[in-house]
Amino acid sequence: MSTMRAVQVVGYHRPLQLTEIPRPEITGPFDVIVRIGGAGVCRTDLHILEGQWEQKSGVALPYTIGHENAGWVDAIGSAVTNVAVGDKVIVHPLITCGLCRACRSGDDVHCTQSAFPGINTHGGYAEFLKTSARSVVRIADSLEPADVAALADAGLTAYHAAAKAARKLRPADRCVVIGAGGLGHIGIQVLKALTASELIVVDRNPAALELAASLGADHTVPASTDGSHVTRVLELTDGFGAEAVIDFVGEGGSTSEGVQMLRQAGDFFVVGYGENIDIPTIDIISNEINIIGNLVGSYDDLTELMVLAARGLVKLHTATYALDDFQHAIDDLDAGRVRGRAILVP
Amino acid sequence: MSTMRAVQVVGYHRPLQLTEIPRPEITGPFDVIVRIGGAGVCRTDLHILEGQWEQKSGVALPYTIGHENAGWVDAIGSAVTNVAVGDKVIVHPLITCGLCRACRSGDDVHCTQSAFPGINTHGGYAEFLKTSARSVVRIADSLEPADVAALADAGLTAYHAAAKAARKLRPADRCVVIGAGGLGHIGIQVLKALTASELIVVDRNPAALELAASLGADHTVPASTDGSHVTRVLELTDGFGAEAVIDFVGEGGSTSEGVQMLRQAGDFFVVGYGENIDIPTIDIISNEINIIGNLVGSYDDLTELMVLAARGLVKLHTATYALDDFQHAIDDLDAGRVRGRAILVP
Amino acid sequence: MSTMRAVQVVGYHRPLQLTEIPRPEITGPFDVIVRIGGAGVCRTDLHILEGQWEQKSGVALPYTIGHENAGWVDAIGSAVTNVAVGDKVIVHPLITCGLCRACRSGDDVHCTQSAFPGINTHGGYAEFLKTSARSVVRIADSLEPADVAALADAGLTAYHAAAKAARKLRPADRCVVIGAGGLGHIGIQVLKALTASELIVVDRNPAALELAASLGADHTVPASTDGSHVTRVLELTDGFGAEAVIDFVGEGGSTSEGVQMLRQAGDFFVVGYGENIDIPTIDIISNEINIIGNLVGSYDDLTELMVLAARGLVKLHTATYALDDFQHAIDDLDAGRVRGRAILVP
Amino acid sequence: MSTMRAVQVVGYHRPLQLTEIPRPEITGPFDVIVRIGGAGVCRTDLHILEGQWEQKSGVALPYTIGHENAGWVDAIGSAVTNVAVGDKVIVHPLITCGLCRACRSGDDVHCTQSAFPGINTHGGYAEFLKTSARSVVRIADSLEPADVAALADAGLTAYHAAAKAARKLRPADRCVVIGAGGLGHIGIQVLKALTASELIVVDRNPAALELAASLGADHTVPASTDGSHVTRVLELTDGFGAEAVIDFVGEGGSTSEGVQMLRQAGDFFVVGYGENIDIPTIDIISNEINIIGNLVGSYDDLTELMVLAARGLVKLHTATYALDDFQHAIDDLDAGRVRGRAILVP
Repeated sequence: MSTMRAVQVVGYHRPLQLTEIPRPEITGPFDVIVRIGGAGVCRTDLHILEGQWEQKSGVALPYTIGHENAGWVDAIGSAVTNVAVGDKVIVHPLITCGLCRACRSGDDVHCTQSAFPGINTHGGYAEFLKTSARSVVRIADSLEPADVAALADAGLTAYHAAAKAARKLRPADRCVVIGAGGLGHIGIQVLKALTASELIVVDRNPAALELAASLGADHTVPASTDGSHVTRVLELTDGFGAEAVIDFVGEGGSTSEGVQMLRQAGDFFVVGYGENIDIPTIDIISNEINIIGNLVGSYDDLTELMVLAARGLVKLHTATYALDDFQHAIDDLDAGRVRGRAILVP
Repeated sequence: MSTMRAVQVVGYHRPLQLTEIPRPEITGPFDVIVRIGGAGVCRTDLHILEGQWEQKSGVALPYTIGHENAGWVDAIGSAVTNVAVGDKVIVHPLITCGLCRACRSGDDVHCTQSAFPGINTHGGYAEFLKTSARSVVRIADSLEPADVAALADAGLTAYHAAAKAARKLRPADRCVVIGAGGLGHIGIQVLKALTASELIVVDRNPAALELAASLGADHTVPASTDGSHVTRVLELTDGFGAEAVIDFVGEGGSTSEGVQMLRQAGDFFVVGYGENIDIPTIDIISNEINIIGNLVGSYDDLTELMVLAARGLVKLHTATYALDDFQHAIDDLDAGRVRGRAILVP
Repeated sequence: MSTMRAVQVVGYHRPLQLTEIPRPEITGPFDVIVRIGGAGVCRTDLHILEGQWEQKSGVALPYTIGHENAGWVDAIGSAVTNVAVGDKVIVHPLITCGLCRACRSGDDVHCTQSAFPGINTHGGYAEFLKTSARSVVRIADSLEPADVAALADAGLTAYHAAAKAARKLRPADRCVVIGAGGLGHIGIQVLKALTASELIVVDRNPAALELAASLGADHTVPASTDGSHVTRVLELTDGFGAEAVIDFVGEGGSTSEGVQMLRQAGDFFVVGYGENIDIPTIDIISNEINIIGNLVGSYDDLTELMVLAARGLVKLHTATYALDDFQHAIDDLDAGRVRGRAILVP
Repeated sequence: MSTMRAVQVVGYHRPLQLTEIPRPEITGPFDVIVRIGGAGVCRTDLHILEGQWEQKSGVALPYTIGHENAGWVDAIGSAVTNVAVGDKVIVHPLITCGLCRACRSGDDVHCTQSAFPGINTHGGYAEFLKTSARSVVRIADSLEPADVAALADAGLTAYHAAAKAARKLRPADRCVVIGAGGLGHIGIQVLKALTASELIVVDRNPAALELAASLGADHTVPASTDGSHVTRVLELTDGFGAEAVIDFVGEGGSTSEGVQMLRQAGDFFVVGYGENIDIPTIDIISNEINIIGNLVGSYDDLTELMVLAARGLVKLHTATYALDDFQHAIDDLDAGRVRGRAILVP
């Protein structure tokens, strides 16, 4: 039996550990083994080590983490028809059943029997990952796995929310993006690709606003502690507020401020999380606003995001690290030293 | 100049007063004068007398109240083409401009220049009401103004929310209605007319649940102080929750209970109001639920509701009072003695 | 190896033949073997014998026909989670891949790799049928396989078109159904269950119109050779025409007549086929009408149709025949002696 | 009474004539008088002179033609609130009632009582035009009436069809545009602004294809008499065909070729007209395709198109002529000497 290197959680509040473990093998007809080309290092990985997911995932230790993966198809099960060995692929973060009602209608994110590699089963900080035919999306020749891996989860979430907003936005509408960070700057690129609406970006960080402007934001508004950014957005929208507000922050008052920026009948998209939505029902009905939840995107969403990436419409900053150098990547992320996303390359 | 009888607010915290005032006259090309056949007596009318609307409406006293009106067209302006003198009509509660962006797209409820007869200008507790061509909907020969007047506002709000929910509901879905009272029992009838989804009705009042069952509810669930109705709804939905929950109550914990009854990706419709929506953003995103605000229906909604009424698919209990007997109606409403809706008939 | 009785095509322009053949067995993880409770005898089966499908299907003879099947789950593959042995099921007519783009978005009817039991592989005129986990829908305890089998294809097609129309129809709209026969009378029941629109049914056959009226049609219009039914529909729609026309006939001039019955911006649903749609482009643009194609329904559609059937909202007339008596059923169908649908019961 | 210069139809098959006629005046509360800044010269104007519209419009001669108008508001009726004197505006080609069912739902193009200045009442080949508050859209300071006038009808039709297609198109989809001429090249710009779908443009004219490429078409395909462009489009879409085909030609076989380019479940948008749509119903149902009619855009569409124009996302080539020089413009158009659109400037 051949083996491979993998970075594993061996205990909570303890460092990750590089080990030699058996290579995953095809056992089911829809299995797909991916040779990892890049695995995104995500803040969630830090939270896992802190034990925040211990109860929720119930995963048995040791296990391999890493939920943002891309690479090349190394082996396929007997029933796999959508990819072939050698194909370059990005890996959807969920393994879904394909049979439940959600899966049947294209809403596979709400599969009632899904697994989540890197969270509750072996993930991609390794040379090889076992996933399913239902989770692999072929990517264009022009894309490299290490460059797109971080789109598999963080980028996919931003795409899902921005594309959902875009389906209702018309050219005369205004869309506010709160937070131009990791997810937000992907959301901005998606909105620019899919709508002709006016885009107003709010952030506390001047560098984030500069990035937003360079990505095509029509207006950038610095968030301040006095709430003057709410006033500014209302001015920019002729006093009416925006048809859509996408909140990539979800804490520090962003939700109540965001709702104040809404036009009557507008949509507030919750993406970032932390605080509570706390709004009088009288305000919800008298302004007839909607609060729209957003989770990670579906398989179809990932396919579409890869089309945007292939056309150069969505780009991500990355810093690559050798797999063996994983601790360095983790430390850099923890210390705020990573610009864009850290990617492990086996 | 001819005069008419009208019931007016002459001061806050003082009784309404029946007076002889000038009959309204056509002054603009789109004016319509309606001879009142019935005017609904609404709890909002009590709140007006208590001064709750004094600041908000800024209306000059004395003025005629009554915002749920139906009757016969008595006179029309030169440009009116949609109704003729003698037509039986119900009156949409708002007078809208027809030119703003909301009006142009059929969403006239969010007109930026609307007036609200009975709230901020003369209403329908009178022999005649002045409204606009944009606010009158012809009703079928088989309907009587006094029977449908209360559908103009309360019924229209229920229709709007239920019809919005119905547009997404499919036969295999479940819909929960919280509150089978004045609005809720209209909502139930609308849902039965527009969907084949399974209907679960929750109320504290056994009589309301009996009414719900007689109107076609598939399941009725008594609301109790121990929250066992949430458990019961989850049981009735195979543990998943319902695709839609329409909350006609909005207080006493109904919103947090209602949200707990939702399936992943479900919609919570806010109609009743009072308490705050207060939900962790993590719950909104992890279940990917939506909170949908609902105000009164549009002109098109009222047209559709009148079609349902004409077919006998939506019925309202009413108790009629002579206009001169208005104080009796007000007192009965205040004392909880009205079954259905009280209607003043001039 | 155990065997079973099956009715097979042994040559074109020759009678079907009852044979003893091997029982199908589980070979793949998603296989499902269904013990047939009823198999619908369809006009397509006659066309197969006439050789009309010889080129198109390329099926190797002998093979078992029958594409409208329902029964009990007899065996399942290792990966099947949506049904268990003993479950009562109806069988979707297609076996789909679950991996192609159409399948992933819930539009499995346009699967690029589907098989069609009874057409291009073994079907259900037999004791057992091999299908896939992706094709079986559990039905309610109150339903019997032999009663619903014919909903698997004919009924599913009617449901698909009517439900698609219903998603746009509002209470003030009118919907015309052309043809109240096998598919049409299902379509009428579906429209009554899903909309409150006014329903106008056109047919040449007085008995079909009587059936339509008994199922809830608001108006019935006899089709005549002088085209007076077009005039009548226009009268019934105030001269404007109907928002939707669903044509279950597709020949004898029904398409051009149907298009004349449309209101501006209306939708013409093609279900029945035979003649050409032949319309000047100037008419299509000046009335801004849409011609909407309709094929059989998806797996989700079948799930929804079974919900309507379980509630008694959709009923089918059937005449049952023993499997061994298949020739009798075929002859009766060919001679026009079957009222409703003929069902073979093993 | 003040007068103005106007170019009028004084008889069919006779030249237009410049005359001095009374200036239009405000007579109704929603009247708007526009001082013309530019009036597009359209092929329809040639057809009017040829008598092709004589029966259809029933207009009394002499009358002023010109249905693509923009300018400055010169006077307004007492009820006009959406524009003020001096505002720069483009004029929607229809004057609509605002009261019929179509108008109430935002679909004003299907108004049952509309007038069409330049076709059945006085148009814009003049110094002043009388229209309605419901027909004027304010344009950005950066736009000049003479530059956008031709977007009022030709451009608006292209926008309407392309924006309708864009609402369904997703990034992984392909859209074919047949005809990159006057309307088509606007359609291409609109599609680029509103979608990230791959755009394939088919035209017989190499110069038109060059223009298409410069506007962002991903692929250009020369149309040839041997139908090889159909094959080429199928190749470019992996043999499946395109999700949407927008046909701006409508003659010379473009409709049957366009339908052959469709993917299963695809949409064929009819914009250009001339020939018949002539397709077997079996093809419509077996591929489950839709034929979508398209007329001129609504008022809301025009508002949106003006947003795209203000952002430089939609541009039009124009050649301006003095109003007195109208015959020169007409002759140039008739002789095919106009590049882009001819505009009369008073």
